[in-house]
Amino acid sequence: MFELLHQKFAEKISLTEEEFNYCKSLFKPKKLRKRQYFLQEGDVCKYQAFIEKGILRSYTIDEKGSEHILQFATEGWWMADLSSYVTGESSLFNIQAIEASELLLISKPSWDELMLSIPKFEHYFRILIQNHLVATQKRLMQSLSETAEEKYNKFSKTYPDCLQRVPKHMIASYLGVSRETLSRLRKNIIL
Amino acid sequence: MFELLHQKFAEKISLTEEEFNYCKSLFKPKKLRKRQYFLQEGDVCKYQAFIEKGILRSYTIDEKGSEHILQFATEGWWMADLSSYVTGESSLFNIQAIEASELLLISKPSWDELMLSIPKFEHYFRILIQNHLVATQKRLMQSLSETAEEKYNKFSKTYPDCLQRVPKHMIASYLGVSRETLSRLRKNIIL
Repeated sequence: MFELLHQKFAEKISLTEEEFNYCKSLFKPKKLRKRQYFLQEGDVCKYQAFIEKGILRSYTIDEKGSEHILQFATEGWWMADLSSYVTGESSLFNIQAIEASELLLISKPSWDELMLSIPKFEHYFRILIQNHLVATQKRLMQSLSETAEEKYNKFSKTYPDCLQRVPKHMIASYLGVSRETLSRLRKNIIL
Repeated sequence: MFELLHQKFAEKISLTEEEFNYCKSLFKPKKLRKRQYFLQEGDVCKYQAFIEKGILRSYTIDEKGSEHILQFATEGWWMADLSSYVTGESSLFNIQAIEASELLLISKPSWDELMLSIPKFEHYFRILIQNHLVATQKRLMQSLSETAEEKYNKFSKTYPDCLQRVPKHMIASYLGVSRETLSRLRKNIIL
C-alpha cells in the first residue's frame, strides 16, 4: 500500500521520508466490491479517492433515466465530485466501482491541512487540477464538434486500459453514442 | 489600472504592498480593439490574460467551418488556452475580443516565477483553476444531458452580463443550438 501514491507524488515533487509519513497518516484505505458505490446522488462527497487498484466511474442520471458518464478513473488517478467535496453541498453524481477496487481516501479538512503544512502539495494539486481542466475542456469541445468516430478514436488513445476493462454500454454512454453506433465503430477499427 | 486585479487577489489571499508591487511588475498591459485577436489557431498561447475591461471569447472552428465556443470571459476573469500556455504547443483555439478590451498579460515563465517566489499565489491559482474545473464539468454534463431550454436558463443565471453584451449568434454557438431555437427560447422567457 502507498507505493503508487508515493510514485505519483515523486513524479512532480520531492518529499522527505518524514513528509511522506505525515502525508500517509492523513489517508485511510477503503475497499469497494464490484458495482459498490463510493458516492450516491444526494450525499455529500466527503472524500477524495486515490485509486490503488480497480476502476471507478462518475455519472449522473437524467430525468428520463439515462446515464451520462463524466469520468472513468483507473490506477494512479483521483476520483471525487470536486464540487460537492469543496462546497459541502449534496452531490448530483454517482461514483461506482466497475471492478473490485482499493482506494486511499482523504477528507476535505485533511486535504486542506496537507497543503497548508507542506506547500509543495499545493503545487502538486494545482498541476493535477490544471491537467484535469485541460482534459475536460478538450472533451467538452469534442462533445460539441466531433463525429462519433473521432470521439471513439480519441477515447482509445486516452484510455487504452478502459477499452478492455469497461463494459461497452458504459463506453457508449461516455461518448454519448448508441450501443449500435459503438459496435459499428469497433468493427471498423478492428477490420 | 491593477485595482481590479488587486481586489480579486484580496478576495482569497492577503498580500503585502511589497508583494503586490512585485506581482504588478510581472504583468504588462495590452489593449484590444473590438474583434481583434488575442490568439489565433496554430500560434502558441504565450500569455494568460486578466480582463480589466471588455469581453473575450475562445472558440474552435471545425472542418465544416462551424464555430464552437469554449468560454466567454468578462471583467475580473482570466482567459488563455491553458493547454498551449502550459505545454508550449500550438493552439487549437482562437481568442477574440467581443468588445474593445483592456488586459493584463503574464507570460508562462513569469507566472511560474510568481508562484515560486510567493507560494500564496500557488494557493490562489489552485483555487481558481479548481473552480474553473467544476464549472467546465457542469457545462460538459449539461451538454450531454440537458434540453436547449435548460441550457439557456443556466446560461442566463451564470452569465447575466453576457446576455446583454454578447451577440445572439455567439450565445447560440456556445449553447450548441440554432439561432432559431435561441430566438424561441428568448421569447418564451420574456413572455
